[in-house]
Amino acid sequence: MSQKALEYLTENRDRLLTKLNEFLSIPSVSTDSVHKKDVQQAASFLEDYLNELGFENVQKISTSKHPIVFAEYTKAGPNAPTVLLYGHYDVQPVDPIELWVSDPFQPEVRDGRLYARGASDDKGQVFMHLAVFEALLETEGSLPLNVKVCLEGEEEIGSENLYAMLQENKDLFQADFAVISDSGMVAKNQPTILYGLKGFTGIEITVTGPDHDLHSGMYGGAVRNPIMALSHILASMKNEDEVVTVDGFYDGVVGLSDEERELIEQVPGEDFVKATGITETVSEEGYTPKEHTMARPTFEINGIYGGYQGEGTKTIIPTSATAKITCRLVPGQEPVKIQHALEAHVKKVAPKGITVSVKKEKLSAKAYKVEPNHPLIQKAATSYTRAFGKETVYVRMGGSIPVVEWIEDIYNIPIVLLGFGTPEDRLHSPNESFPLDSYDKGMETLIYYWHELNNK
Amino acid sequence: MSQKALEYLTENRDRLLTKLNEFLSIPSVSTDSVHKKDVQQAASFLEDYLNELGFENVQKISTSKHPIVFAEYTKAGPNAPTVLLYGHYDVQPVDPIELWVSDPFQPEVRDGRLYARGASDDKGQVFMHLAVFEALLETEGSLPLNVKVCLEGEEEIGSENLYAMLQENKDLFQADFAVISDSGMVAKNQPTILYGLKGFTGIEITVTGPDHDLHSGMYGGAVRNPIMALSHILASMKNEDEVVTVDGFYDGVVGLSDEERELIEQVPGEDFVKATGITETVSEEGYTPKEHTMARPTFEINGIYGGYQGEGTKTIIPTSATAKITCRLVPGQEPVKIQHALEAHVKKVAPKGITVSVKKEKLSAKAYKVEPNHPLIQKAATSYTRAFGKETVYVRMGGSIPVVEWIEDIYNIPIVLLGFGTPEDRLHSPNESFPLDSYDKGMETLIYYWHELNNK
Repeated sequence: MSQKALEYLTENRDRLLTKLNEFLSIPSVSTDSVHKKDVQQAASFLEDYLNELGFENVQKISTSKHPIVFAEYTKAGPNAPTVLLYGHYDVQPVDPIELWVSDPFQPEVRDGRLYARGASDDKGQVFMHLAVFEALLETEGSLPLNVKVCLEGEEEIGSENLYAMLQENKDLFQADFAVISDSGMVAKNQPTILYGLKGFTGIEITVTGPDHDLHSGMYGGAVRNPIMALSHILASMKNEDEVVTVDGFYDGVVGLSDEERELIEQVPGEDFVKATGITETVSEEGYTPKEHTMARPTFEINGIYGGYQGEGTKTIIPTSATAKITCRLVPGQEPVKIQHALEAHVKKVAPKGITVSVKKEKLSAKAYKVEPNHPLIQKAATSYTRAFGKETVYVRMGGSIPVVEWIEDIYNIPIVLLGFGTPEDRLHSPNESFPLDSYDKGMETLIYYWHELNNK
Repeated sequence: MSQKALEYLTENRDRLLTKLNEFLSIPSVSTDSVHKKDVQQAASFLEDYLNELGFENVQKISTSKHPIVFAEYTKAGPNAPTVLLYGHYDVQPVDPIELWVSDPFQPEVRDGRLYARGASDDKGQVFMHLAVFEALLETEGSLPLNVKVCLEGEEEIGSENLYAMLQENKDLFQADFAVISDSGMVAKNQPTILYGLKGFTGIEITVTGPDHDLHSGMYGGAVRNPIMALSHILASMKNEDEVVTVDGFYDGVVGLSDEERELIEQVPGEDFVKATGITETVSEEGYTPKEHTMARPTFEINGIYGGYQGEGTKTIIPTSATAKITCRLVPGQEPVKIQHALEAHVKKVAPKGITVSVKKEKLSAKAYKVEPNHPLIQKAATSYTRAFGKETVYVRMGGSIPVVEWIEDIYNIPIVLLGFGTPEDRLHSPNESFPLDSYDKGMETLIYYWHELNNK
């Protein structure tokens, strides 16, 4: 039954890739207000495509920042299941731009990979779903199930407006289950079901000293240096054994069972050293790097700045220094409690002579875990294995997708994380790419899956 | 004898201030290659002024970056002493520009202060010397002593070419003593002789981890965070009691005698809290803030950067993090040995999983100390007191002027540090200014001093 749709994809491959490239060429960087119109344009691209497909009720739902694209397909009838398909059409900033081999917004295929910002995260994967709908509609005249589409433009800036919008329009987005393709496989062409995601929270610490930059020769010796004070604070938060030393950080966290350690051991792991160019891995005392990345909480400083950063020297004691911190959380950790624990620690250890302020990131998410033997998960695994010709593995991963927590919270429906990215995709970095293998076999997987789900 | 020259300065005050403003309007920022032509223009301004004054042999001596302006006055004859007058016409960058109340290069007088980048450090003080020469030449027809002028354009970037130039042109700059007006008084209208200056050295530490920014959810737990590693390194270099914890840092440093502690105690000190807006002072355990700033070595982080610094969050493990460090040194400390000690410490404490590199600043200077009872110093104090109507105090200060060490090294002549700045001048910061009181009484001091020196 899937054969004609698969043939359609093969016959129309070049045209569809050209269309995808048109989508990827729009610099929909949501964090930067300069790109506000581009984000709108990416939403319009999706709106047009959904209209072409004959979806009903296609619309941009306005928010205080970037719109959410909604559309539905109801012609599978009341007896067919309804899937809520979530994805995002916004992308990360491209800096440092000078490290890109080709322009991030002029997609280019090199060695079987499509290079562009958003190729993997998440415009490429969103496009695959629409192209599969096109193939099914063109060859079978209808889709095997009903669909509600929710494509947002604020995922990379914390999905600020999504939760409220989903809550206010609960009926509009109501479905039997959700599918999200915004994740990856553990290795290229290795079918992977994500059964757990980490939660997420963050703070920004600013240490303020003198009210203007001071001449280090005139004031050095009388004034606490804000950068040194910040260094002392940060160094007190995680030790060299990669253990977070903030009171309460690990409260509620359950250690790994021997079974789960074994499961993690069996996942074909990435060679971290080779993939990242580091000299050697480091991980939390008592846990392997694979265990730590998949199933233990993490604490990262994402950025730091203060004082003079230009050419040459500037002999000052700067007025302030700031660090941006985010943590990945596991089941048992409450984001808000973690923020409070981090803030309490910072206030406790801050030395005299400076003031310290902690800004709590609004964006937070609890960790998520689903049973690997749920039928929706099992059918996904079957479709995956059929398309890729390889057994599916089940993993927990360090990434956080706040919408997963929210869909669970508002709708209490099963969520299937069906991702086609690979570890080499360089998400959020220069030279993001997506393998065309994943693109082709991923669409094949989706065609099998939608048909599977109609086989009750 | 000085009366006519003083009257000349009063009568020509407006015209000379307009001329000074013309000089200050030239954005001669030496560290920024964008301003290369402006630095040249500032040198040309001085060249023109010296030619107008009838100085001989006026010339710009080219260097690999910014020129040194030379000129001489020999008409006082072989029996009069010859002074080497050193100053600099380059200025610090102006960032953060948004904090300036008025344009840094459009001088403005507010509440008796002249606001402009360079007003105090050092264009304003250089100009005072030339205006005093003008007053003496116009009213007395000659100067009381011979003069060699050395005005450089690279002081704020470490006087890279000055040492070699002084050495190569030793005869040209040979003099009986040197006068430098590139420092300040301990309080406004408080005559101050600097009898000691700190030395100076610096390093830049860069911690490098992964070869591209990593997604913190995919790699957090396996990869050492370069910013956290840098924080651990920095926190290990100075403790919260403001004691530098680097092996060998204090080697050769002589503790303060009770006599010197008393001398320092008697200097009318600045209210550090009021002047800087900090909550309270901090200083090295066992030393007061005044003792630490004047006579103990210091260690400051001048700038730090790494990872994401933009709007919003970016959940990365960054590739690298960098800190710029400079130290102020006291007699007994060798700059090169200090750099080696800092580097050895950094290499010793660097955690595994990252690489660390230490770049040693080329700019270094040994500390300087002169006897307060030298006749050249005593005559300066007399002139100072006569102009300002107040007893002169003798202080050591934290600032470093590499040229002081070099003049001593090459010529072995006494150096008189005759500065007219005030603690409120905000050198190197937004809203730099210079009090017009210092401008007027400073020139009066110079007129008395040049005459004093000819009274043998």
